[in-house]
Amino acid sequence: MPAKAGNAGRGVGDDNSMNDTVRIALDAMGGDHGPTVVIPAAAIALGRHPDIRFSIHGDEAVCGPILDAHPALKAASVLHHAPVSIRMDEKPSQALRQGRGKSSMWLAIDAVKTGEADCAVSAGNTGALMAMATFCLRTMAKIDRPAIAAIWPTLRGESIVLDVGATIGADAPHLVDLAVMGSAMASIMFDIPRPTVGLLNVGTEEVKGIEDVKLAGRMLKEYDFPNLQYIGYVEGDDIGRGTADVVVTEGFSGNIALKTAEGTAKQVGSYLKAAMSRNWRTKLGYLLAKSAFDALREKMDPKTVNGGVFLGLNGIVIKSHGGAEALGYASAIDLGYDMVKHRLLARISETLARGESMRPAAGEVAS
Amino acid sequence: MPAKAGNAGRGVGDDNSMNDTVRIALDAMGGDHGPTVVIPAAAIALGRHPDIRFSIHGDEAVCGPILDAHPALKAASVLHHAPVSIRMDEKPSQALRQGRGKSSMWLAIDAVKTGEADCAVSAGNTGALMAMATFCLRTMAKIDRPAIAAIWPTLRGESIVLDVGATIGADAPHLVDLAVMGSAMASIMFDIPRPTVGLLNVGTEEVKGIEDVKLAGRMLKEYDFPNLQYIGYVEGDDIGRGTADVVVTEGFSGNIALKTAEGTAKQVGSYLKAAMSRNWRTKLGYLLAKSAFDALREKMDPKTVNGGVFLGLNGIVIKSHGGAEALGYASAIDLGYDMVKHRLLARISETLARGESMRPAAGEVAS
Repeated sequence: MPAKAGNAGRGVGDDNSMNDTVRIALDAMGGDHGPTVVIPAAAIALGRHPDIRFSIHGDEAVCGPILDAHPALKAASVLHHAPVSIRMDEKPSQALRQGRGKSSMWLAIDAVKTGEADCAVSAGNTGALMAMATFCLRTMAKIDRPAIAAIWPTLRGESIVLDVGATIGADAPHLVDLAVMGSAMASIMFDIPRPTVGLLNVGTEEVKGIEDVKLAGRMLKEYDFPNLQYIGYVEGDDIGRGTADVVVTEGFSGNIALKTAEGTAKQVGSYLKAAMSRNWRTKLGYLLAKSAFDALREKMDPKTVNGGVFLGLNGIVIKSHGGAEALGYASAIDLGYDMVKHRLLARISETLARGESMRPAAGEVAS
Repeated sequence: MPAKAGNAGRGVGDDNSMNDTVRIALDAMGGDHGPTVVIPAAAIALGRHPDIRFSIHGDEAVCGPILDAHPALKAASVLHHAPVSIRMDEKPSQALRQGRGKSSMWLAIDAVKTGEADCAVSAGNTGALMAMATFCLRTMAKIDRPAIAAIWPTLRGESIVLDVGATIGADAPHLVDLAVMGSAMASIMFDIPRPTVGLLNVGTEEVKGIEDVKLAGRMLKEYDFPNLQYIGYVEGDDIGRGTADVVVTEGFSGNIALKTAEGTAKQVGSYLKAAMSRNWRTKLGYLLAKSAFDALREKMDPKTVNGGVFLGLNGIVIKSHGGAEALGYASAIDLGYDMVKHRLLARISETLARGESMRPAAGEVAS
């Protein structure tokens, strides 16, 4: 695969087309519904992308019969028995202790490590998945810490927000890494050569955020990466507005922003529900406008918000929302497919290498 | 005024009833609408609380005629001419330079400092107001930094979230101060002796937030303040759920949470608007349910969310939303009235003094 540094566009030579297949490892036991969702989802994704080959990890006795019901998928898959399933409420350390080497989650990630798969998808619990993925795959060269990138619905479409809670705190170079990783993901997802990147900050004029955010802003300006366009600071309300394709922040504030947005959406939904059942007029209004409310509900569905991509590891790991149905889970598989096909990891490495070569002495930037 | 340490209940002796009047200083030129909103708002507040006496600071030529139209208010007010008005987009440092000693904002705050007023209310720009208030009033003994407390609508009613951006970063003792100040405000606003307090944190099991938050949690448990009930960590989605009466966090994440919630509420509003104009059925549905939508809009009105109380200063300063109409601004005056009447500052000092006396050696708590 030729390394084309600086080419962020998506040309023919820029994707994975030399590989005939994209090999995806599935944690069939993860999520609220396990294989009853994961296997039908894989069948849907295969229908869309006939060049996927699956390795399915899970309890053979449970998964076998479900797989039998999907002959086309069965022909494109290998089922691997995993004696252990990680519970949704299991603590990461506990999951690692009990699931290492034998859980469906671990085996799916391990398939990426050994090179049997290009990407792993799981709807299992985020903490356990991040712990196992970090332990098993390790971080990429030049990346100190992994990140979770969330796909955030906005008024303009979608944006990527990271880190939403993989690690806490971030110095300026880590924030720059987040910008590079997030924009590599955005350029693939949104098919744009130079995604806009904003650093999340507070608005009060003279309390312009923490030193690390300021320094990261200066670094991003200085580096002027060819495949991301730094647009400066953005505030909390810019996320939903879609002001930037990629919003960069450290994991604590990113997690709080994500959860607060989810909470607010639910809150407004509750208010709306209460408001619509006030009297016969509002109830009738609700019935007439039901299609509108259904569309709204779909737009605010946590499936869209809650999934994410683990970035910064030696391998692609996609987290699907735990409560996702087959269609939602199939989107997570599609996302993994795109990230493999369009060389997410190579793009990140290329940009980082370019940044490295341009990196001025820290003193210069900080001044 | 007797200091009744440990008495958080609202008894007769616990309020400001020995003073006949509550003296409120108004920055008449602040906000998007200036005296055309501020003066009618004062008239409304005076109708509710005949024991208020106002000092109104602003351009005499503009304020005079408006005040003439409200004879009852005029009789209860003194109008002070202020030659300078702080613009809504003025930088704090600029505002301080140009407005010190002669702007309506400064003069309103200064009236609190000199003891002519018990409380100042302004709808002017937050950064300038905080800079002037801090410069003029200084922080209370034992409080290192001021904070802005936001009143946050929740599914259970309202909560107080602080700090939403007065300062960036917070060590554990400062987080404890925020808990004390926020719960003093909550006990007055919600009329409860022992408000529940949660520390905002991230949920991932083993990445349980930053060290300062953990230590603050241990300190709050240890101190077991008689007038606040520490309930542990809360997450971003707990704010809108109303899990705690008071949500404590440092200013960076607090500001991002607040702005993100505002952005999300607007976003859902836009989706809803688009969804309701899809076809004739949804349009008719909208008309029938219009009362419900109006109620919803009122509930999500930034007036409710955007105001705030500056805490930790030697004086009470209330920030009203810049775009507030007279009724909204009158609520800000009411809020100031309650805080004075029920001795906000004395309650904070009493609790802090009590905490001080109980404070174990730092090493004991940290271990």
